[in-house]
Amino acid sequence: MAQPEWNVMLASCPSRTSLARIANKWTAMIVIALSGGPLRFGEVRTAVEGISGKVLADTLRDLERDGVVTRTAYDEMPPRVEYQLTDLGRTLQEPLAALGRWAEQHIEEVITARTAYDSR
Amino acid sequence: MAQPEWNVMLASCPSRTSLARIANKWTAMIVIALSGGPLRFGEVRTAVEGISGKVLADTLRDLERDGVVTRTAYDEMPPRVEYQLTDLGRTLQEPLAALGRWAEQHIEEVITARTAYDSR
Repeated sequence: MAQPEWNVMLASCPSRTSLARIANKWTAMIVIALSGGPLRFGEVRTAVEGISGKVLADTLRDLERDGVVTRTAYDEMPPRVEYQLTDLGRTLQEPLAALGRWAEQHIEEVITARTAYDSR
Repeated sequence: MAQPEWNVMLASCPSRTSLARIANKWTAMIVIALSGGPLRFGEVRTAVEGISGKVLADTLRDLERDGVVTRTAYDEMPPRVEYQLTDLGRTLQEPLAALGRWAEQHIEEVITARTAYDSR
C-alpha cells in the first residue's frame, strides 16, 4: 500500500492543520498544565494564567476533536467535568514542554536582542 | 544576584511573549526552512508554501527583533538580501522540527479522531 508523504511545508498537506493546532501558545500551555494529570475547566484556567474562558473552551474542544484531550463528564452532584491528555496527547508533552523551557531559558537573550533592535 | 524565575504560565512573565513567537506555525516552518542555510526572501516564501508576503515579512522582522534570524543586505547589483538563523535561532531548530515531525507522524491518528468527533 502506498504511504502518503505527509509534509507540513506543503500548503495542501493535512499535516499542516495539525501543526497549526500544536504550534500554538495556548495549546502548549494547556498541554503543559494537563501533564500533571486530569484537571477541571476552572483548574486549567487557573494554571494557564490570563487565558479567556472562550479561548480555553475553543482550544479544549479543538484538542478533543484532534484526539489530544478527552473530556469526561461525571454524573455527580454537583456535576464534574475533567479534561485529560490521551495517549496521543502525552506524546506532545515533551515537545511542547521543550518550547516552554526554551522561552524561559532564552528570554534574557531575547530581551537583549529586542532592545538592540529597537534602538537601531 | 537574584535570578528571576521566568515562567510561561504566568500572564505577566516576559517569557510568554517569547513562547507566543516560537509556538507559531509560521515560525516553525520558517525556522525549518532556514535550517538548511541562508535563504533569500523569495526562497523562504517558496519553501513555506502558501505563506503570504505580508505574513512572511512580518514574521521575519519579529524573528530578527527577537535575535532568532539575521537579515543581511549585500551591496550587489541586483541587491541581494539573505536571512539566516543566528546561534540562538539554531537552538530552536530541533524543538520546532520536532513539532513538524509530530504533525506529519500523527496526522492519520488526528484525522481518525476528527472523523469520530464529527460523527458523534
